[in-house]
Amino acid sequence: MDERLVWRERQRRVLQRCGIFDVCASERVAGDGREGRFTVLEAPGWVNVVAPLPGPGERFLMVRQYRQGIERTTVEFPAGLVEPGEEPAQAAARELEEETGRQAGRWNRLGALAANPAFMTNWCTTYCAEELSPAFPARPDALERLEVLEVPLAELLAGLGGGELVNPMTVAALFWYLRYRARW
Amino acid sequence: MDERLVWRERQRRVLQRCGIFDVCASERVAGDGREGRFTVLEAPGWVNVVAPLPGPGERFLMVRQYRQGIERTTVEFPAGLVEPGEEPAQAAARELEEETGRQAGRWNRLGALAANPAFMTNWCTTYCAEELSPAFPARPDALERLEVLEVPLAELLAGLGGGELVNPMTVAALFWYLRYRARW
Repeated sequence: MDERLVWRERQRRVLQRCGIFDVCASERVAGDGREGRFTVLEAPGWVNVVAPLPGPGERFLMVRQYRQGIERTTVEFPAGLVEPGEEPAQAAARELEEETGRQAGRWNRLGALAANPAFMTNWCTTYCAEELSPAFPARPDALERLEVLEVPLAELLAGLGGGELVNPMTVAALFWYLRYRARW
Repeated sequence: MDERLVWRERQRRVLQRCGIFDVCASERVAGDGREGRFTVLEAPGWVNVVAPLPGPGERFLMVRQYRQGIERTTVEFPAGLVEPGEEPAQAAARELEEETGRQAGRWNRLGALAANPAFMTNWCTTYCAEELSPAFPARPDALERLEVLEVPLAELLAGLGGGELVNPMTVAALFWYLRYRARW
């Protein structure tokens, strides 16, 4: 790889604290001497859980919720932030339970992606949760209201990239799940 | 759908202008009367281009670049912001040409995803560019240095979610390309 591609940070300062992330200005210099100032969002990691349901048909536990960024509802796999002191795998088990009221007997890590490599520092780790327990009442966060859905695979494959199926991490997670299941 | 899920905006103000986006505070009220204050990033749309190469083997034009958010290089499909007054399809043709020095004889829109539905307002539209012209010298932006690569499909399928293949839009785009090609 061309070392001139790589930039080194000289200084970083917080411009704005926004609760879920800090907006920072970073002064950097490239391998070939170019200088630049970049905006970077420092944010906590998060997790995404693909939870296929037992029984006939191939259905997944998903959640419908209002998304404040795009001002509409989406249908996504259960997901949430990793809390301080928590490992991503613990966050995945906690979020699955909080959002859907289920526990899983078997967990597998499917992969990790950068939230937005251009200006965000954080990563999203995707897990597969199998051998699901029956549902008990879910405990969503106070400001978070969810509908729990059971969505068939065929509906996901046909609908990804339109309607309510517009979260990139949900698309990536399904792709990984199919790889995990050796579907290609 | 449960109307209590939906939030309405009462007021929005800009907290910080960051060049590539504005950080805003939005006061909102839910259908069931709950009130909340949310941080929203207003950002321009962007585009992503899957460009399969003609000839034997199944290879894709990709770019290696340093990503300031995660402070490492990634390998992604050609991509970039939609400029003011531009349609996404025009931005896709411009970015392909600027980053790889190629034009395409055939374009198809594969789908669109929200950048980050939780707090960003913008969308990424993915196109497939076929019937590629031979390469002429590319014109990357001043602060942007790229290596153009030709990556085989098998390498993408095996490597997604690790190493340099960590951009969620690249993963989603490849998934759509396989759907477009009716691979499942």
